[in-house]
Amino acid sequence: MNTTLTNGIEIIKATTSKINEVDFENLSFGSVFTDHLLECDFKNGEWQTPVIKPYAPFLVDPSLRVFHYGQAIFEGMKAYKDENNDIWLFRPDENYKRFNKSAVRMAMPEVPEEVFLNGLHQLLQLDEAWVKKGKGKSMYIRPFMIATGTGVIANPSNDYKFMIILSPVKSYYSGDVKVLIAEHFSRAANGGIGAAKAAGNYAAQFYPTNLANKEGFQQVIWTDDATHTKLEEAGTMNVFFRINDTLLTAPTSERILDGVTRKTLIDLAKREGINVEIRPVLVSELVEAAKNGTLKEIFGAGTAAVISPISGFSYQEVYYELPKIEKSMALELKDKLENIQNKLAEDTFGWTVKI
Amino acid sequence: MNTTLTNGIEIIKATTSKINEVDFENLSFGSVFTDHLLECDFKNGEWQTPVIKPYAPFLVDPSLRVFHYGQAIFEGMKAYKDENNDIWLFRPDENYKRFNKSAVRMAMPEVPEEVFLNGLHQLLQLDEAWVKKGKGKSMYIRPFMIATGTGVIANPSNDYKFMIILSPVKSYYSGDVKVLIAEHFSRAANGGIGAAKAAGNYAAQFYPTNLANKEGFQQVIWTDDATHTKLEEAGTMNVFFRINDTLLTAPTSERILDGVTRKTLIDLAKREGINVEIRPVLVSELVEAAKNGTLKEIFGAGTAAVISPISGFSYQEVYYELPKIEKSMALELKDKLENIQNKLAEDTFGWTVKI
Repeated sequence: MNTTLTNGIEIIKATTSKINEVDFENLSFGSVFTDHLLECDFKNGEWQTPVIKPYAPFLVDPSLRVFHYGQAIFEGMKAYKDENNDIWLFRPDENYKRFNKSAVRMAMPEVPEEVFLNGLHQLLQLDEAWVKKGKGKSMYIRPFMIATGTGVIANPSNDYKFMIILSPVKSYYSGDVKVLIAEHFSRAANGGIGAAKAAGNYAAQFYPTNLANKEGFQQVIWTDDATHTKLEEAGTMNVFFRINDTLLTAPTSERILDGVTRKTLIDLAKREGINVEIRPVLVSELVEAAKNGTLKEIFGAGTAAVISPISGFSYQEVYYELPKIEKSMALELKDKLENIQNKLAEDTFGWTVKI
Repeated sequence: MNTTLTNGIEIIKATTSKINEVDFENLSFGSVFTDHLLECDFKNGEWQTPVIKPYAPFLVDPSLRVFHYGQAIFEGMKAYKDENNDIWLFRPDENYKRFNKSAVRMAMPEVPEEVFLNGLHQLLQLDEAWVKKGKGKSMYIRPFMIATGTGVIANPSNDYKFMIILSPVKSYYSGDVKVLIAEHFSRAANGGIGAAKAAGNYAAQFYPTNLANKEGFQQVIWTDDATHTKLEEAGTMNVFFRINDTLLTAPTSERILDGVTRKTLIDLAKREGINVEIRPVLVSELVEAAKNGTLKEIFGAGTAAVISPISGFSYQEVYYELPKIEKSMALELKDKLENIQNKLAEDTFGWTVKI
């Protein structure tokens, strides 16, 4: 093993690479991982030396806290390689800050910047051959933290493990997405953890989403749990509505994730002179707009898919198909955003950070 | 290794026992485990042969689904040894049924009865020396299931692992418990997963509970998330209120766990001729009863502590101390229940099941 200590990070290089076994033209999202990962353990009240080492399974006790009491958070980020072979991150500070907000809400320790951001830089440098050029191609980055204490008493863990794993991905095409507006199920409570990127939030969505799938809908648009009258998120994404030429999206809250793609699209749309309204959006106004023809587009926004256009929605057993439009605001914003991410357009916002 | 197949369960016995290393008079709850565990994997759409084998760590991939999307459920049960060295379970069918209800809500496969109940019987028989006699002593049983598929796409896992681990415990004494009534935070949403014994529900409670701890309160009484006017659970337990000589507890719902101890206490109390009202209990009536002296007792009810008396509560910055009472309904019910569980009183309900 080739072991070195660089900027406080121990690096153990893999002796061989798996890269030649990977078909980069046929990647299933999030299923292939690079040669290395970053690992940093929290023990005795402090973070230990981070280690970059070969991606491999690790041993866990059956009483591992995360299995029993669910302390687990994550982030989703992407890195892009430009024509000069430089690698760029997109607004990494936003993910770093949100990760630590999630950590606080889940009673987990905050991760130091040197571990999260410096660690990510070094990991990407080591596995740079895995970051492929070309629009749509990117490296999906998954920082996560789990409770690694043992024992089945329902208290916060004393020990934690932070990891970053990397998965090369292609453009995420979600197909034709029809959505069901939630009238009974919900993803978050007032005073709950909906704003945290907590593992448990996702597991809670699978059953209602499966039910929607059986009825022919690919996703659920979540509404507020108390009244089911306000539109909040679409699947695991934030959601935007275009009524005439105005973009509407709900304000972030304890129930709604402060999405990086969401806030980026708001800024981009404003720069393009698009009228953006950030306010609670009612199911009733969506139905009304669909009926009177002013509803032009609905789309989800998130790191994995960037923008996921929605072709229609169902509410109270009635299906509303959206009109086919010539000039999609969703696709135009997606194109502009991807050009910035891929360094094909000038980044006037200073969102991209070079590795 | 001594490997046998008994009633469809493969048994691999430990070559040595750890039992002599354990101080059974000084057990910290849920921290010591017996020599064996039961494991059963769900793969290719079906449950594999269950295996009872030595308790040991196991290997997991960094992209293990449960770390990222939180599909994890569990149960808490207890076994007791009577004076004749027979081992008894308490209402195991209730835990088995609830486990599979949780599984459905979390989009996980239901576990067959042969694996859960027959497996538990055989595991307890093998580790029977670990079940100690005497009131207050018991074997805490932790069946749980985690998503073991790999990859970071936010879909339900295809693979799962079901396990049962056993932890010998002493009587659980929670000390003086003062509680804070939640005015902002909450544990469950309407249309959410509060009724499932899902790992993520517990992680969500740690932060608000830590905040309460800092103010000198050991637990939080959770209220409905929409209005914070209805009393729902106490910490990780169901909650009962005694006003004059009537016991009040909230009806189970999507937000409230259908606790086995809760329903057992309701039946026991009714048999004792106690008036039990199962209906939404308002914070306002609790405060009113505390003020006019009709509030006699508050207690949590759950498998770990059985009954946990609460000495006072705080609401809107006002602390209400409960009166000291001569004849505690909580302690009387606890005594009657523990006598049934320990086979020291006749089990007229047929709740106990011999191993």
